Amino acid sequence: MYIAEEPFWDRTLRLIREIWPLGEQNELKDKIHVDLPDSDLNVLRRAISACLGGRGGEVSARSRAAELGRAYLVLGADGRFKFLQLLAREYDVDNVAVEKAIEARNSITSPLELQAANQKLRLLLDPPRARLFQQFNELKEGVKFLVDLRAELIPWSRKDNELKALDQDVHRLLVSWFDIGFLDLRRITWDTPAAILEKLIKYESVHEISSWADMKNRLREDRRCYAFFHPRMPDEPLIFVEVALVSGISDNVQELLDVHAPIEDPLKSDTAIFYSISNCQKGLAGVSFGNFLIKRVVADLTAKLPNLKNFSTLSPIPGFLTWLRGQDESFDLGNKERELWESVQSADDPIEVLSRMVESSGEDDGASNAETLKNLLLTLCARYLALAKRGDQAYDRVAHFHLSNGAQIERINWGANQTQAGMEQSAGIMVNYLYKLSQIEKNHEMYRGRGEITLSSHVKKLLK
Amino acid sequence: MYIAEEPFWDRTLRLIREIWPLGEQNELKDKIHVDLPDSDLNVLRRAISACLGGRGGEVSARSRAAELGRAYLVLGADGRFKFLQLLAREYDVDNVAVEKAIEARNSITSPLELQAANQKLRLLLDPPRARLFQQFNELKEGVKFLVDLRAELIPWSRKDNELKALDQDVHRLLVSWFDIGFLDLRRITWDTPAAILEKLIKYESVHEISSWADMKNRLREDRRCYAFFHPRMPDEPLIFVEVALVSGISDNVQELLDVHAPIEDPLKSDTAIFYSISNCQKGLAGVSFGNFLIKRVVADLTAKLPNLKNFSTLSPIPGFLTWLRGQDESFDLGNKERELWESVQSADDPIEVLSRMVESSGEDDGASNAETLKNLLLTLCARYLALAKRGDQAYDRVAHFHLSNGAQIERINWGANQTQAGMEQSAGIMVNYLYKLSQIEKNHEMYRGRGEITLSSHVKKLLK
Amino acid sequence: MYIAEEPFWDRTLRLIREIWPLGEQNELKDKIHVDLPDSDLNVLRRAISACLGGRGGEVSARSRAAELGRAYLVLGADGRFKFLQLLAREYDVDNVAVEKAIEARNSITSPLELQAANQKLRLLLDPPRARLFQQFNELKEGVKFLVDLRAELIPWSRKDNELKALDQDVHRLLVSWFDIGFLDLRRITWDTPAAILEKLIKYESVHEISSWADMKNRLREDRRCYAFFHPRMPDEPLIFVEVALVSGISDNVQELLDVHAPIEDPLKSDTAIFYSISNCQKGLAGVSFGNFLIKRVVADLTAKLPNLKNFSTLSPIPGFLTWLRGQDESFDLGNKERELWESVQSADDPIEVLSRMVESSGEDDGASNAETLKNLLLTLCARYLALAKRGDQAYDRVAHFHLSNGAQIERINWGANQTQAGMEQSAGIMVNYLYKLSQIEKNHEMYRGRGEITLSSHVKKLLK
Amino acid sequence: MYIAEEPFWDRTLRLIREIWPLGEQNELKDKIHVDLPDSDLNVLRRAISACLGGRGGEVSARSRAAELGRAYLVLGADGRFKFLQLLAREYDVDNVAVEKAIEARNSITSPLELQAANQKLRLLLDPPRARLFQQFNELKEGVKFLVDLRAELIPWSRKDNELKALDQDVHRLLVSWFDIGFLDLRRITWDTPAAILEKLIKYESVHEISSWADMKNRLREDRRCYAFFHPRMPDEPLIFVEVALVSGISDNVQELLDVHAPIEDPLKSDTAIFYSISNCQKGLAGVSFGNFLIKRVVADLTAKLPNLKNFSTLSPIPGFLTWLRGQDESFDLGNKERELWESVQSADDPIEVLSRMVESSGEDDGASNAETLKNLLLTLCARYLALAKRGDQAYDRVAHFHLSNGAQIERINWGANQTQAGMEQSAGIMVNYLYKLSQIEKNHEMYRGRGEITLSSHVKKLLK
Repeated sequence: MYIAEEPFWDRTLRLIREIWPLGEQNELKDKIHVDLPDSDLNVLRRAISACLGGRGGEVSARSRAAELGRAYLVLGADGRFKFLQLLAREYDVDNVAVEKAIEARNSITSPLELQAANQKLRLLLDPPRARLFQQFNELKEGVKFLVDLRAELIPWSRKDNELKALDQDVHRLLVSWFDIGFLDLRRITWDTPAAILEKLIKYESVHEISSWADMKNRLREDRRCYAFFHPRMPDEPLIFVEVALVSGISDNVQELLDVHAPIEDPLKSDTAIFYSISNCQKGLAGVSFGNFLIKRVVADLTAKLPNLKNFSTLSPIPGFLTWLRGQDESFDLGNKERELWESVQSADDPIEVLSRMVESSGEDDGASNAETLKNLLLTLCARYLALAKRGDQAYDRVAHFHLSNGAQIERINWGANQTQAGMEQSAGIMVNYLYKLSQIEKNHEMYRGRGEITLSSHVKKLLK
Repeated sequence: MYIAEEPFWDRTLRLIREIWPLGEQNELKDKIHVDLPDSDLNVLRRAISACLGGRGGEVSARSRAAELGRAYLVLGADGRFKFLQLLAREYDVDNVAVEKAIEARNSITSPLELQAANQKLRLLLDPPRARLFQQFNELKEGVKFLVDLRAELIPWSRKDNELKALDQDVHRLLVSWFDIGFLDLRRITWDTPAAILEKLIKYESVHEISSWADMKNRLREDRRCYAFFHPRMPDEPLIFVEVALVSGISDNVQELLDVHAPIEDPLKSDTAIFYSISNCQKGLAGVSFGNFLIKRVVADLTAKLPNLKNFSTLSPIPGFLTWLRGQDESFDLGNKERELWESVQSADDPIEVLSRMVESSGEDDGASNAETLKNLLLTLCARYLALAKRGDQAYDRVAHFHLSNGAQIERINWGANQTQAGMEQSAGIMVNYLYKLSQIEKNHEMYRGRGEITLSSHVKKLLK
Repeated sequence: MYIAEEPFWDRTLRLIREIWPLGEQNELKDKIHVDLPDSDLNVLRRAISACLGGRGGEVSARSRAAELGRAYLVLGADGRFKFLQLLAREYDVDNVAVEKAIEARNSITSPLELQAANQKLRLLLDPPRARLFQQFNELKEGVKFLVDLRAELIPWSRKDNELKALDQDVHRLLVSWFDIGFLDLRRITWDTPAAILEKLIKYESVHEISSWADMKNRLREDRRCYAFFHPRMPDEPLIFVEVALVSGISDNVQELLDVHAPIEDPLKSDTAIFYSISNCQKGLAGVSFGNFLIKRVVADLTAKLPNLKNFSTLSPIPGFLTWLRGQDESFDLGNKERELWESVQSADDPIEVLSRMVESSGEDDGASNAETLKNLLLTLCARYLALAKRGDQAYDRVAHFHLSNGAQIERINWGANQTQAGMEQSAGIMVNYLYKLSQIEKNHEMYRGRGEITLSSHVKKLLK
Repeated sequence: MYIAEEPFWDRTLRLIREIWPLGEQNELKDKIHVDLPDSDLNVLRRAISACLGGRGGEVSARSRAAELGRAYLVLGADGRFKFLQLLAREYDVDNVAVEKAIEARNSITSPLELQAANQKLRLLLDPPRARLFQQFNELKEGVKFLVDLRAELIPWSRKDNELKALDQDVHRLLVSWFDIGFLDLRRITWDTPAAILEKLIKYESVHEISSWADMKNRLREDRRCYAFFHPRMPDEPLIFVEVALVSGISDNVQELLDVHAPIEDPLKSDTAIFYSISNCQKGLAGVSFGNFLIKRVVADLTAKLPNLKNFSTLSPIPGFLTWLRGQDESFDLGNKERELWESVQSADDPIEVLSRMVESSGEDDGASNAETLKNLLLTLCARYLALAKRGDQAYDRVAHFHLSNGAQIERINWGANQTQAGMEQSAGIMVNYLYKLSQIEKNHEMYRGRGEITLSSHVKKLLK
């Protein structure tokens, strides 16, 4: 073994030999955290160079990269940080070589030579460490390795520009590996392996799955769940969506999640409600699947359930109250609503006051007050969704996602999510984004091109 | 539909609608050859720009690319040539933008900005058409689409520099898609789908498979066959290798292929003979799998058949006689052999004369002559394999492949392949390349680094 | 080992130990034929008794039965015959015990005791050897073992009454194992394992499959092939049917089998022609699947290809000429036809003369003669199919099969099968049996109840 | 439809049409309970006779039986009871025909005719309703149908002799359907479908699975779980066993079930502890799988984990305290133990007193008392296991199961199960039954033949 004499390698190789044959015992692996003392960095440099040096052929470069990858896996967080920092600092683009290539390119006139020069330049602009990341693919779980590596790298990269550049290299590689054309769409049912359902329970980020009974209820006959998988990470969902098959567009998420709700005949349902979409892999931040997922699920549902006419979401409005807290202007409101709005402005935290009113609104007898409160908040929410922008984009990130995909804002629903989270984000209000198949392309282009948002007449009325 | 008025699209879209739902009926599809008149090129330009222009989102860009891909598929060869030429000429790197970016980069001093400038420059050096090829992945058989497109492109690219650059773009993309980490190694048996066996019969390029009975014989108990597959082309082998499990290193390929040969007990065999490796996809020329295939097959065989001690090939020597025909020097030979060699030099085609001698050597009674002939040709062949070079590489392409992988030249076998092809290539001589597991890395490095070839004592003796 | 000292067992056990681990090497196994000398029969008796004696538990009884089964497998034909004869003679019903039980039963009056007595009697009437056959199921391929055993037993049982009774035991067991509810219907395509397609080629008994190209042609887009499999014999088809998807009811089988015939769009076809049904396992003679196969295939085709309106066979008429050869009456015929019929009666073999006429009828210019010949034979054939009976059953066995299933005789086709076999069986005539879904039940009951055959108007006209 | 005018059928058929297409919606089906008024019994009789009458062919008999089966499924408990009672009373063996056949048989002398007469008699002794049960196999879930039917039938059959005879018919059919040769052994892991794990949670009857986390813990790296399945009930486990891979024979089940116990390397474990075996299907009572399950699991573990040397259970002793409560003799005991035993005899419930002592024994300081108590109960328990019999069988049903399979009583463990159930059954004592591979056959024969139980020296010492 070419570096057998070194202490760091000695340790890691011994560990690898002991641990790897156990196979699935990830728990054991997870408990090992070897240090990487600075005195061993030279050993690491030599190992990296052996992969990148190119003296050996592809096969042995890959074998060495796999060994390097396994060494990375037995390091503790400190060691991994040092490892990545080394890659970030010492295996970046060689700017001297780049400048020479630029100089050479400047004196070229023939188109053919220019093409060659361009290609050479592009190769030089690809940092050597990017090649190493590609080679880690030799590891049996090489794809997952890189996804997990990036999940750890992202927080570090926020505070370190070199690591940020490193992260961009990994991101670029993952974008190519996770091209939508390579992914499998799988339907998730109660017959799906428990190990995968356990992951859905863990990854669900919109409406928490509180138990296995809750999970089972979301997979019953009038529900659907789909996830994307990568062929080399067959046990790891990348993103999943939960759908309810109902009659008419739902306005209340508690009803959808109620385990006691009667089961409908899905062949008679006219509406598919996408009530939850969750990304699963932190390491795939910035690699987008959601739009393709919705498109493919709509296609699959349409083929299997010809009665379906409406495809709509029932979505949270995560930024509403936060945004509202920052507004001090006097909105264009009806009399009663303006009065109510102005009456709370004097409070330390007017939004807090409004929230408390919403929470107690069912209890008191002032029905007309409750109506005013509802009118006020629905109006303000419509404004938020339809008019609040960052540049040309909707301010609300969920709104931006669905509008980019070609949906329209269909309806704003009072009392739609009365959980604590729902109350804190949006005073219990939720919104339906409607995917009208014939309008998707047009909506999409208007929104992306000019920031124009398509609104239903219901929402337009709220804005008047 | 955004370009519904145009005649070219009209035609292709109608055809697509009619043909595609038939699904597997590739035969029908293969019979359609739409023309692409120059007057329609503008339509095509607009369609390409709609994909690349970025006005729409990723989902619609992909849908359009898929449509464009299906249009490509219904074109005849002429139309496809024009299509690719358009991409090659008009969607290459924008050199004006590149030069601007270079200029901007020149004035940068901060490392952070330099990094950003490098990245921007690299993006500009990636031709737009490369993005389009990536998007074709939306097609249901998108991976195969690109492989087949390149198979057609390669011959054209030999005569056209612009198409050659285009081919490099496609090659680069395929190298990334067909990274060894994504491929599946599958064992091929008589229980493999007939559709795949039919392809092996078609793709075998070393020892023709003459019938289904011949195919079956190559999959019997003491034979092995392995192939690489891509998860998105599950019905298309990429490369395959055929292995015989025998006792002692084989010196005759007819015996290996004999359907009447008795079956050995594979658990008792000590030797695995790799007697045929064939690439299957013309469109993957220059994407190398063979080295990884051998490595993985050796690993699998070792795990399952612990008695195996030797891993060797029995290989053709495709360039021997061609090379010999070009040699006029007087080699360092034994007396009788020199005499024989000189005696044929006066003929118009000395190699032809020698070949005829070999063919009739079994028949006459001049046993000593036959021995001289054999000595002469084995000696010359050893010289060819061990000493003939192109630069640092072995002149013989099969030798180069195995030596690069770390094999040594083990034995040169007389009368090993008496088929017409074997006689014409190498006067019936074949060679064993031996993979000694403990030596592979060392051999590999010596050969790649310094062009040094490891020889067995048997071969060394022939060279004296 | 409880019988380790005996010579017969010594030999067989040693062989088993040597051969079995090779697993799939059936060829090796097939070459072993151990003798069973009479002096060893006592050893065998003891081994059988050890299985049936019941001293051990079920687990060890099964293990011993498996050993006995493997011993059977290494015997030559002679040894197997002796083995089965021993079972037939010495392990039949114990009539003394039966008579005692009958006597005891006679004196019973209470219904409860009668029930117990009946059950006891039934158990005694089940021969011990039947239990042994059941136990062979412990063999890894136990189901196939029994099917193959019976295939060998059937010819012997024709000449030996004791073996015949033994065969009935095996038959009864196989009827229960191969209950239709346990079978899998699989569609066979070109993606089916070659090992299975090879078996279809071998088992096809109606229209020989002449090559792999012919096999592939029968699996093309407008053809269907289905087979039944048993979950414990997953590599062995039990019965298969070949179907052509066409427009209108086919009248010519050569056209259906023509590899150059253009492919139709199956979604547009209105007719499914069942042109071949073959049983695969000799050992399952008398276990009927064909009726269920047709029913399930019709259901599957109907679900997938809603355009299909007609389900018909294009069937051979295997007994026509043989039957005709035995007829000397003067049929009720038209003038010309009677003249022709009488003109050949004087020949040694009138049918031979007619056959030769048919073969040469395309060649001569006597068009009206040809017409008379055709009319004569179609009329006679209609009589044969519709009127010739054995008891209440149609004389023709193919006719009987389809009529039992509820089909009607739809059309008799001239020149429909001009192969040698077709000419010899039925002068090239074939018949369509039509499965009218709404009539199947009624036809079936009329035929089974009263032997009444449903005829189309076309056939009725031929009978006038 | 042949009985379309009748009210009962009208109702059931309409329901079937409405409900069945929903497929998996068993919940809906489970809520339907149609009545079966006596006035409709004639309709039912006609339907049964249509199946059994034999006028139609097998295909239509099956279709009608399937219809009948679906009708059964929509009945409420009352209706089902009546349905089964009808079968029990009116479709039993025809004793008149049997007696005629017996009479005819009495006058036979030729062996051949005797064989035929026996066969005829056997057929007559098979009640017609048994044929109907076989035909229900046409239902898509026909096998499960019959298993579930029997689960309902068993309690009814305990109080009704006619239903008891009916149950014997169903039992006989299920024994043949569930022959061990047809079953699949599957390993259960955390990757098994959740729907199946949910069933294990429900069916576990020895050590309750308290949560999904508990379930997961029983499937971790150093645990194994195996179940038998029938190919036609692929989602329903029949029986399953849970195994712990440990070092040395376990003496405490809480430790085995502890979710916090460290994970061992299974490749290093020397002992497999079978700590739980549960039957899953009430309808398969009396169809034995457990012995085969243990045999196959031992074979599989031995092949995969060559380090395993001991195969042992850690088993409950369900009948110990119940048995002890019935003993009033003075056992042959040590002085202290006799004193203790006699001291409690005066109590109303001496066993209750002893139990309370065990529960509080950890708490007080009287270490020597605790020791006496332990000695007393271990001695009594050894007596119970080794000497208490019903006929030749061990009195304890778990002991009988393992002793029948060839195990020996290895060790009796104090404080091995301190759950409430464990205390109530056996004062917290558990026992190891050891499967010594070389002794299994001998132990088995000694136990089955003569009721002799093999004991370890540890147990023998307790008996002195």
